[in-house]
Amino acid sequence: MSAAAEPARAPDGAQVRALATAARAAARVVAKAPASQRLAALAAMAAAVRANEAEILAANARDIEAATGHLSAAMIDRLRLDPARLAGVARAIDEVAAQPELIGAMTPYVTRPSGIEVAQMRIPLGVIAIVYESRPNVTTDAAALCLKAGNACILRGGSEAIHSNRALGAAVAAGLAAAGLPAEAVQVMPWPDREAMKALIALDDLIDVVIPRGGEGLIRFVAEHSRVPVIKHYKGVCHVYVHADADPEMALAICENAKIQRPGTCNAVETILIDRAIAETFVPALVARFAGRVELRGDALVQRLGGPTIKAATEDDWHAEYVDLIVAIRVVDDLAAAIAHIETYGSNHTEAIVTRDAAIAERFVRECESSTVVVNASTRFADGGELGLGAEIGVSTTKLHAYGPMGALGLTTSKFVVRGTGQLRR
Amino acid sequence: MSAAAEPARAPDGAQVRALATAARAAARVVAKAPASQRLAALAAMAAAVRANEAEILAANARDIEAATGHLSAAMIDRLRLDPARLAGVARAIDEVAAQPELIGAMTPYVTRPSGIEVAQMRIPLGVIAIVYESRPNVTTDAAALCLKAGNACILRGGSEAIHSNRALGAAVAAGLAAAGLPAEAVQVMPWPDREAMKALIALDDLIDVVIPRGGEGLIRFVAEHSRVPVIKHYKGVCHVYVHADADPEMALAICENAKIQRPGTCNAVETILIDRAIAETFVPALVARFAGRVELRGDALVQRLGGPTIKAATEDDWHAEYVDLIVAIRVVDDLAAAIAHIETYGSNHTEAIVTRDAAIAERFVRECESSTVVVNASTRFADGGELGLGAEIGVSTTKLHAYGPMGALGLTTSKFVVRGTGQLRR
Repeated sequence: MSAAAEPARAPDGAQVRALATAARAAARVVAKAPASQRLAALAAMAAAVRANEAEILAANARDIEAATGHLSAAMIDRLRLDPARLAGVARAIDEVAAQPELIGAMTPYVTRPSGIEVAQMRIPLGVIAIVYESRPNVTTDAAALCLKAGNACILRGGSEAIHSNRALGAAVAAGLAAAGLPAEAVQVMPWPDREAMKALIALDDLIDVVIPRGGEGLIRFVAEHSRVPVIKHYKGVCHVYVHADADPEMALAICENAKIQRPGTCNAVETILIDRAIAETFVPALVARFAGRVELRGDALVQRLGGPTIKAATEDDWHAEYVDLIVAIRVVDDLAAAIAHIETYGSNHTEAIVTRDAAIAERFVRECESSTVVVNASTRFADGGELGLGAEIGVSTTKLHAYGPMGALGLTTSKFVVRGTGQLRR
Repeated sequence: MSAAAEPARAPDGAQVRALATAARAAARVVAKAPASQRLAALAAMAAAVRANEAEILAANARDIEAATGHLSAAMIDRLRLDPARLAGVARAIDEVAAQPELIGAMTPYVTRPSGIEVAQMRIPLGVIAIVYESRPNVTTDAAALCLKAGNACILRGGSEAIHSNRALGAAVAAGLAAAGLPAEAVQVMPWPDREAMKALIALDDLIDVVIPRGGEGLIRFVAEHSRVPVIKHYKGVCHVYVHADADPEMALAICENAKIQRPGTCNAVETILIDRAIAETFVPALVARFAGRVELRGDALVQRLGGPTIKAATEDDWHAEYVDLIVAIRVVDDLAAAIAHIETYGSNHTEAIVTRDAAIAERFVRECESSTVVVNASTRFADGGELGLGAEIGVSTTKLHAYGPMGALGLTTSKFVVRGTGQLRR
């Protein structure tokens, strides 16, 4: 494996079309390949990641070095691989492989009054384009999920992660080759420029879906220029609502974990809502918990109760996805006010409630429209791996096709199968 | 009920936005309404359709009168209601109501290694806009399906069906009122002009999905102008493949039914593919079966075997959705050639094979990528009602979200629900 290739020159549209045409041909092969062959490829991929740890980490170190001084600490954290994270990368491939097989599964046949028998068969989507930034693990997560679901994919990572992505892409290629699947089933796009991306996402005759992962700018760019359907989330403006009947220690721990454990992620909390009934005790405790580690911005009452370190929150703060060690805090009257705030400012990503009141928790679960609703746990669990999807290809905050973290199932669809004995429509 | 109102003047954008804003507010009410209330509304709707048969048929007669001389026979057939079809309209509402309840259903909770419990809850999509032409039954089918799935909807039918749609809309309104649900949960757009439609499908903050139903021109217009996700099919270029081992009588009956029973529908056959091995006997039999009733266009061999009534098929004929009493006929070498033809010229709608060979049927089912694949029955069964969906809101020939006929389930999504006891992400 070599990650030493020079960045390629910008391609013309014909080169991008040729790459996508090869992907479509490979998609047909993958769709017809038995599950055993796809599983063999996944096992060989995970093995190649483990066998090439030193080379992958060296490639990543080149990316980190180039990024240092240019990117924020949170962005560099997203970019960084270390032995533990790389072990997680390989383990995620294993977990995807271990998921139940999806392709070809039939629902039970139902006999209709006409006498026809009707069922649905699960089938791959076809060719998936993933456009992403920073996190190199997306390369293997996406390749594994697409392959598990019988698809081909085209991976267009960010230029800041190009060495890491190529090293991981080489491990993916080794896995495909070991199982006798075409190399074009997973292609790491060699061109990091935006023109190539635009050419790619215009190919609605060759690509079935585009999944952008990254900052809001990238996602809006893809949504605006794509002629292929897009599964996306713009922002993760996640909330923790501390209900009056919350266990205060649990609430403090969840707020801390949701903000601090990995602030660069889309499921980190951005606004904490606190019931008025407990504000007098909980706000100072929360301020103490975050002291010196997180910048706090609050409404007037939070400022009064929390002291002079708290900046005044503006309307912009309620909309903000900081992706950084900053959190907004607001006092609300009750559950209805919390849900109203989330409806106004939220992004349909993830909201958590902390409460001991089961009826209140139930109302929050029912009435909150976000794609992941959490009771008494950290918002950070809104993640494909944690939720049991094996790994995630992305998070959808629009309701069509998928809503929330999306795993292999989200990369399939189903067709109707009708069996008759000569039935005609009357 | 009155269908006598004059067509309204073109609205400004603010009026369209006000209508959609009211729909969104109503969607929240419908989403929280118990199933019993939604079922009561559906029962009252069906009753109102039956009670107002004379008035609805009179309104339809006005539309038919206005259309006569302007629209094709197939289009007028789509537009026409009669007592039997109107009974079907009411029965479709009952069938939608009788489907299993979807909203609030939970998948089983799974405990993850972290200790959190994870499930998914089925929820409505929100506000659905249906843009359609001609067939007045779409008004009640769409209203019933949207309501069954807990959504609000905005119905924008064609100007040619405006009296029929208003009369059916009054029955829907009566059903909502009888059950105490807001009138804005189902709104028949009073403005038939395209500017109003464009204003509607631009409202991506208020509408969750647009479903166009009608001719290719309408669907392309919606796909091009919509800022809201669109579920669509452009064309139904459906095929019947008569395999060498077909029962000839069954094959003739299926070809006849698929073409003639209702040629104005998207699941009518447009091209018949015949195995070379049986062409010499089957082509003349097929020509005799269609004689004087269907215009035939064939390749050179079909012309030679079928006689002088058969016009020469051009490349355009293989792409054509005639929606009329015309059919294209081609001789193919074998199953692989039939599938290759369908891949090249088909529209991912519906394909049927006629064969007694189970292995061939199985290969056709697996390898044909279309949204409905039929063995030994008419393509006309590719219909929500016939397949058991109760009624259909549309047919999707793109693979995202839904593929094939789409019923109430296609108008829902699901969110993740996480329950913990204070779990934090490590």
